[in-house]
Amino acid sequence: MDSGISIALLGCGVVGSGVMKILKDNQNLIEGKLGFPLHVKRIMVRNLSKARPNYIPADILTDDLSTIEDDDDIKIVCELMGGVSPARDYILRLIRAGKHIVTANKEVLAKHGPELLREAAGNGVSLRFEGSVAGGIPIIKPLAECLAANRITQLMGIINGTTNYILTKMSSEGREFAEVLSEAQEMGYAERDPSADVDGQDAAYKLAILTSIAFGIEARPEDIYTEGIRGITSLDLSYARELGFAVKLLAIAKEYEGKVQARVHPALIPLNHPLASVAGVYNAVFVQGNAVGQLMFYGRGAGSLPTASAVMADLMEAADSIARARPVSALAPMVKRWNGTSCLSRIDEVVTRYYIHLLVIDRPGVLAAIARSFGNAEVSLESVIQKGRGKEPVGLVFVTHRVRERNVQQALEEIRQLPVVVKVANVIRVEGEEA
Amino acid sequence: MDSGISIALLGCGVVGSGVMKILKDNQNLIEGKLGFPLHVKRIMVRNLSKARPNYIPADILTDDLSTIEDDDDIKIVCELMGGVSPARDYILRLIRAGKHIVTANKEVLAKHGPELLREAAGNGVSLRFEGSVAGGIPIIKPLAECLAANRITQLMGIINGTTNYILTKMSSEGREFAEVLSEAQEMGYAERDPSADVDGQDAAYKLAILTSIAFGIEARPEDIYTEGIRGITSLDLSYARELGFAVKLLAIAKEYEGKVQARVHPALIPLNHPLASVAGVYNAVFVQGNAVGQLMFYGRGAGSLPTASAVMADLMEAADSIARARPVSALAPMVKRWNGTSCLSRIDEVVTRYYIHLLVIDRPGVLAAIARSFGNAEVSLESVIQKGRGKEPVGLVFVTHRVRERNVQQALEEIRQLPVVVKVANVIRVEGEEA
Repeated sequence: MDSGISIALLGCGVVGSGVMKILKDNQNLIEGKLGFPLHVKRIMVRNLSKARPNYIPADILTDDLSTIEDDDDIKIVCELMGGVSPARDYILRLIRAGKHIVTANKEVLAKHGPELLREAAGNGVSLRFEGSVAGGIPIIKPLAECLAANRITQLMGIINGTTNYILTKMSSEGREFAEVLSEAQEMGYAERDPSADVDGQDAAYKLAILTSIAFGIEARPEDIYTEGIRGITSLDLSYARELGFAVKLLAIAKEYEGKVQARVHPALIPLNHPLASVAGVYNAVFVQGNAVGQLMFYGRGAGSLPTASAVMADLMEAADSIARARPVSALAPMVKRWNGTSCLSRIDEVVTRYYIHLLVIDRPGVLAAIARSFGNAEVSLESVIQKGRGKEPVGLVFVTHRVRERNVQQALEEIRQLPVVVKVANVIRVEGEEA
Repeated sequence: MDSGISIALLGCGVVGSGVMKILKDNQNLIEGKLGFPLHVKRIMVRNLSKARPNYIPADILTDDLSTIEDDDDIKIVCELMGGVSPARDYILRLIRAGKHIVTANKEVLAKHGPELLREAAGNGVSLRFEGSVAGGIPIIKPLAECLAANRITQLMGIINGTTNYILTKMSSEGREFAEVLSEAQEMGYAERDPSADVDGQDAAYKLAILTSIAFGIEARPEDIYTEGIRGITSLDLSYARELGFAVKLLAIAKEYEGKVQARVHPALIPLNHPLASVAGVYNAVFVQGNAVGQLMFYGRGAGSLPTASAVMADLMEAADSIARARPVSALAPMVKRWNGTSCLSRIDEVVTRYYIHLLVIDRPGVLAAIARSFGNAEVSLESVIQKGRGKEPVGLVFVTHRVRERNVQQALEEIRQLPVVVKVANVIRVEGEEA
């Protein structure tokens, strides 16, 4: 008597084939823990005739969702297609057909998570999504369950491997963005259309999910301030390093003045901060709770087997719950944390420190004029360094004390008008130090 | 209608008062997530008349276990006393009285975990212990549940804050063990009797628990090779740094040649390894799984609120399970992972690299004689550096290739007999690089 549980996959690309490989390689271990086998009964794919590895049996492939939707034997479906359309419709149809859902689809969750979770709850099925953020790194369940007794005060993540790879290379080799990007594209670390990664959208989707779990609010991706890394130059990276900072694309969610900030942008972070040494394609999420203090979760944020590891954990938990008739925990990330209202701060309300890189004409009184503009906007300066004396224009690098973004913008507006200022070369927020 | 769940604490020291503080400070958040309140009905203490913070109500203190054991209203008991006696007896009595148990007691779990877990399963109650290892860092549940589909291949932890604080200070300030230890004792980072920490026993208890969860075997602390940090000198730390390594007290569990190694000892680890930058009292656990690749969990490994954060997560999960009549998951760490047989390797079967620091008479032919002894034992050398030329005796620092410990011991036996060898100053294993 086998009494296993039948499942189906939607999509058999990078993550789907990883799930199939783990099911094959670790079959005994998985069955041993669950006490019963998992049977993959159907895999829905777009192209039935594409060549696939031998652990993906051709006879279970289908291009017809109804063969899964209408099969009452299939209890759990893993949606591993990505994107909103048709994933959202498929998930809704499968939920209404009584299937438990496991997904690694950050975009559909960030944009339609509340709808999908309500629908799942209404149909008495679960919707799990550990694989949607930071690949193999356990973060959704630790945030929701292991830190359940904490008020989360801040969360900062390096959750896009492509941009971290590019910034790491630019920094260690002194090269420029465009050149490193095309190399990354050749090596398969960046997509042919890299914009979702380098412009921060991918990180913003993941941050929307993390913010919802950590703060119990509905964080819509369109309310998340999002700025990518195209404007970062190797000169800024080397100035930052001299000042004692690394530059990372950070996804930040923080509680401040009773509101939650959620923002994705490049940031200077002190070299001794645990996030500063997260290099290459690795991801890490730094979390601070009012009881636990500072934590960091580090690992591979993408890739076939790491992401499939997270999907498999959700799948095994779903199967275990079905077999033991376990109701979903009140603490589980999938039920009620996502029903609040959005109350994200606007970016101009953010209070942090700023790195400001100006190009100016090198003549007496320049610094006084610029300092006056900062003063007029109540921006107080922590340090200023002059760079490239003797050349024209010269660089002036300022680091401010903590100040509201609105004041910085006001100061920069005035500074741009000064006849001695050639250009505001870069403005990068500085994070990772306590208020 | 309140319908909360009543609980009791055994012990109200560092961790117990942390639990009480979190219950007070985060009361609304905790009730909001659970959907009902938690009532602390009794706290068992040794000294009823000791002065305590105002969030510990004097009228619920007791020194009589039977007031908890016999109270059917109390569903969950948190054992936060530490030590084996009387904790083990108390836990057994409470399990038999039908109480769910949450504990942060590494020693009783390492020594009597299988017995306690069998007894809990037999009485239909749960035994949870996230707080027993690495304080606030979520590690037990992530290992058991989030990595359920992985074959864990290795685990390396910095899981003793006292020794990490001492080694960090010795390394950054060039000072010796004894001096830094007494400073740490004055600052409260080390106990008056520091031996459980500095001799590695505390780490060995925690490693026994982690090894059992990660590898599904019964790892007895007495089978774990345990070596502390008393022999580490600031000279070795500086030689190690020159060679590109940090020195950490590591707790290591690895699968090798079909057996599991579990060992606690100082180790050289490459400076670019994620564990190398874990400084001061912080803890971290590095895990490698055959699907997920490399992960690291970082945070505060001890202290009142961090450890209480982990206890509270277990407590909330236990309360939620009672309220929803959720049976324990087959994947949960508390049920079946601990019923295997011990099959730990002996230390002389370990294969790794070695840092070997000799003091020798500086005369022609010395290196040839020593190299011959290494060769006789089939120990192959990766590098050798001479230190302190002109002084007598001079230092010779060898780093070996991967070799079985037994061969290194054999080589050292021969080397100790050489007339030119004054002393084997130190032998430290080198970890953190792939085979």
